[in-house]
Amino acid sequence: MTKVTCDLSISADGCAAGHGQTEERPFGDDGGDGSGAALHAWMFDTPEENRAELDLMAGAGAYIMGRNMFGPVRGGWDREWNGWWGEDPPFHAPVFVLTHHPRDPQPMAGGTTFHFVTDGIGAALARAREAAGDADVAVAGGAATVNQFLAAGLIDELRLHIVPVVFGGGTRLFEGVPPLRLEQVGSRAASGVTHVTYRVPR
Amino acid sequence: MTKVTCDLSISADGCAAGHGQTEERPFGDDGGDGSGAALHAWMFDTPEENRAELDLMAGAGAYIMGRNMFGPVRGGWDREWNGWWGEDPPFHAPVFVLTHHPRDPQPMAGGTTFHFVTDGIGAALARAREAAGDADVAVAGGAATVNQFLAAGLIDELRLHIVPVVFGGGTRLFEGVPPLRLEQVGSRAASGVTHVTYRVPR
Repeated sequence: MTKVTCDLSISADGCAAGHGQTEERPFGDDGGDGSGAALHAWMFDTPEENRAELDLMAGAGAYIMGRNMFGPVRGGWDREWNGWWGEDPPFHAPVFVLTHHPRDPQPMAGGTTFHFVTDGIGAALARAREAAGDADVAVAGGAATVNQFLAAGLIDELRLHIVPVVFGGGTRLFEGVPPLRLEQVGSRAASGVTHVTYRVPR
Repeated sequence: MTKVTCDLSISADGCAAGHGQTEERPFGDDGGDGSGAALHAWMFDTPEENRAELDLMAGAGAYIMGRNMFGPVRGGWDREWNGWWGEDPPFHAPVFVLTHHPRDPQPMAGGTTFHFVTDGIGAALARAREAAGDADVAVAGGAATVNQFLAAGLIDELRLHIVPVVFGGGTRLFEGVPPLRLEQVGSRAASGVTHVTYRVPR
């Protein structure tokens, strides 16, 4: 049985993004320039040290993300926007974007295709499972989307990457999620990050 | 130079206690019976595995705690209450309790004496430093008190013990604390807990 996984880099106060996100500052008040640099330093500054975690993140057969993670466009698709990641996004797989506004699939370089799903998280998960085949499905973020999936009991494995920065507020993991007993199945320290893997009981 | 330390067991969603604390349920809605059992299982169920962390916790020369950590009595000291810990509390050192209501020092067995401080966290810290001598001062909790000390820049080392349970709300570490860059100086997994030590820049 394939799993539904979620990797999320969070601040020590549990935020995946700060308040005040804009196109120029996609991570908002993140204690830096809004680029999320501190949250993701472990991926970009010390990738070899974190190879195992990065490989797991990259191993999903399909991804699901919220509209805010995909981009800053709100309401209808009234201007061209193909994600934050340039021509060759790092997913290399189908990505299902939750939105209220229909849009045709958007193929990108490197095997990524953005599909736009207007009928909710259950439908997005069904489509992602089908697309992923024998591979896992990953809920990529942001925290609000992860919280929806957690509250619905749809995530099997939550892999947190806890970074030593306090945002002082923002989009917080577990906000609105009912009480849960998790199972800690892995935990590992690296430079400037603690990786913790939880199994989420169904 | 001695340090001001803080050890805090927190849920995966960053809470040191749930909502709805009462005398019968000092940890409130903690996913269990309100006794904080899940939060503190690492201390009581697997102490040998966590000996290093427990020894550090026990090594302070004086402790500071908030009124709510000391007990459920609110307002004046209108009934006898000497803490949650029985005749021989686990501190074995002076404990400075923050309160708005004066009370004489309360000596207990085993070297613990509760002192009641009515003039704020700075005064409590000064008295605790003097009492601790060459040893560290520990801010024992709860989260609201820790947050006051963090916001005032008075904690040097924050040792979190992150437990695989989601409270879904409660008294949250870092609530109201302004943005901070921490330094992760240690991180270690044990059974059902991840220990992370942060140095807090002054």
